[in-house]
Amino acid sequence: MGAVRLTTPLSERLALEVPIFQAPMASVTTPALAAAVSNAGGLGALGCAYMQPDVMRRDVAALRGLTRRPFQINFFVAPQPDPVPAAAQREAIDALARYYRELRLAPPEPAVAPYAPDLDAQLEAALELRPAVVTCHLNELPAERVAALHAAGIVVGGSATCVAEAKRLEESGMDFVIAQGGEAGGHRGSWMRDPQTALTGTLALVRLLVRRLDVPVVAAGGIMDGAGIAAVLALGAQAAQLGTAFIPCPESAATEVYRAALVDAAEDETSLTDKFSGKPARGLRNRYMRETAQGDFPRLPFPAQNQLTAKLRTASAQGGSPEFMALWAGQAVALSRRLPAGELVRELERETLETINRLEQRCVTSTPQRRHGT
Amino acid sequence: MGAVRLTTPLSERLALEVPIFQAPMASVTTPALAAAVSNAGGLGALGCAYMQPDVMRRDVAALRGLTRRPFQINFFVAPQPDPVPAAAQREAIDALARYYRELRLAPPEPAVAPYAPDLDAQLEAALELRPAVVTCHLNELPAERVAALHAAGIVVGGSATCVAEAKRLEESGMDFVIAQGGEAGGHRGSWMRDPQTALTGTLALVRLLVRRLDVPVVAAGGIMDGAGIAAVLALGAQAAQLGTAFIPCPESAATEVYRAALVDAAEDETSLTDKFSGKPARGLRNRYMRETAQGDFPRLPFPAQNQLTAKLRTASAQGGSPEFMALWAGQAVALSRRLPAGELVRELERETLETINRLEQRCVTSTPQRRHGT
Repeated sequence: MGAVRLTTPLSERLALEVPIFQAPMASVTTPALAAAVSNAGGLGALGCAYMQPDVMRRDVAALRGLTRRPFQINFFVAPQPDPVPAAAQREAIDALARYYRELRLAPPEPAVAPYAPDLDAQLEAALELRPAVVTCHLNELPAERVAALHAAGIVVGGSATCVAEAKRLEESGMDFVIAQGGEAGGHRGSWMRDPQTALTGTLALVRLLVRRLDVPVVAAGGIMDGAGIAAVLALGAQAAQLGTAFIPCPESAATEVYRAALVDAAEDETSLTDKFSGKPARGLRNRYMRETAQGDFPRLPFPAQNQLTAKLRTASAQGGSPEFMALWAGQAVALSRRLPAGELVRELERETLETINRLEQRCVTSTPQRRHGT
Repeated sequence: MGAVRLTTPLSERLALEVPIFQAPMASVTTPALAAAVSNAGGLGALGCAYMQPDVMRRDVAALRGLTRRPFQINFFVAPQPDPVPAAAQREAIDALARYYRELRLAPPEPAVAPYAPDLDAQLEAALELRPAVVTCHLNELPAERVAALHAAGIVVGGSATCVAEAKRLEESGMDFVIAQGGEAGGHRGSWMRDPQTALTGTLALVRLLVRRLDVPVVAAGGIMDGAGIAAVLALGAQAAQLGTAFIPCPESAATEVYRAALVDAAEDETSLTDKFSGKPARGLRNRYMRETAQGDFPRLPFPAQNQLTAKLRTASAQGGSPEFMALWAGQAVALSRRLPAGELVRELERETLETINRLEQRCVTSTPQRRHGT
């Protein structure tokens, strides 16, 4: 007699033992984190958005040294902005100068193009590395790219924040769609609507996508425990993707200042900001976010702004202050806990089963007479 | 052998046969709607926010002629703004003039104070009418008011959009808290934070409140079918409150233009606007919402602005156009359906039980070997 476990068609297809995806958070994931999640039966992930192919190869090799289980790698699909001449960066640099001064740093150098790794080169590396799953964020992937990944035996997904985006992903041939609800931390994946205003909550979005799509839906945003996982499974999602929940794990690359800010949060103290990277992302409100939200604070386009704020973020973390760091976090951040990633996955699984069991107990057999009228 | 039904401690306390609340939508509820929901075993509701005590008495009497089951009545708790002198209303009136002209109406008269019924008089009427449940929206109720309602045998609840607000309601002695998630249609209940930016999604908010409060939580926002109800029960909510889902019911007071706009919505086409009433509320985007979102469109404080827009909204509906109406709707509006309210409650119950059944089937007994490592 074996243990009870959770299955969905998608988790079966990916040979997972539990329908839990670790979100592929750029700069936070590590081979150790992904391996711990995959070894516990979930889908570990590497956020490769900012990685050159060499770094991808190194990290995937390290990950494969730690697990033989499936894992996900993720890319940002965002058009490179035209290079911004140094003179045209003056305003954005000057706006940051007082923060750099406050941390006793020289003002930032102008950002240098290219601002992000070449997506084609990243995708070529993915074809060669053959992870079980490749996902994209911030936009769709051309159908021929999806087909090439399929030809390499890779399962492909992408994230959507509305029905229209999800339909585009489905039409491109993707195997599943990640419903990124408004609760989610980090960069908003919206590309067909204004990410600052059209934030559809996870509950509404997951249900809309499940009802409108033929491919499986993975739910993301605000899920921190087994009750949240059971909830999205009830909505028809075939897996839950958790980001914030995995950041305090000892295997993540998060600084201690970041971890502490997450586990100390008392409730939803998050907002969107586009002043760290150039694109709206959800994080814990700190001084930088509050002050740069005022007026028309100048910034470079995504992802060039990342370069301008890099040293500020690093110095803030090194100085032990959360005030100038990008503290990406979802709206349920106050439910954060510090557990090793494998233990967390097992605990999430246990809680989910317990929640389903509790739900069953809400169903009782009543006496025959019911339905009153007058 | 009786039928299977859903119970929670709160639904038992209120003698409901199913843990479904109809939201007390001001101007949309009717005695017929509330009675149909209550007779089907849920908690029907009258939105009394804009009702003078006389109208409350009339509607409650009509409702009691249609059901002997429990129901809810709801009030807005918002301080009356100081009367705005007619001259100071010029700008807000002029801003609306072109819309009035377009509908061949004379420009609106200045709003006349008092702008809303007297809350004390409404609460006195509630004490006399003794509905099973009284809830408040937009702010907390003083503890002595809650105690007075309790003394009359009334169960009391209030709505919160964050943990801090929910704690205040709990401390005032309320019996339950309605978690109004960001998905919810109509007026945002926030009073301790900025309702325009701090929109915590239903999934995150419900779970946060369930984990942080001792009193039961009722979930609201984005719930349109049994999958949504099962999801919030999984999160630990003891009832689901649905608003948008009940608007297309033939028993509601909604105009046909409003109903058609809801059932025709293809996805989340909602936004927040404060240009109809003076307070941010979620509704289907139409021309009025889009155009008045630009720049600093002048408006009167809540609820005085309601008076300035009243004739515009009425004429728009009468002319068969949704473009100048307040089409309050939640983010899952695209799942709207036209069913009589009693049938809808029974269908929601059936779907919820079916969802829980499907969730159980996600749990399988596996073979003993599991948990891979390397």
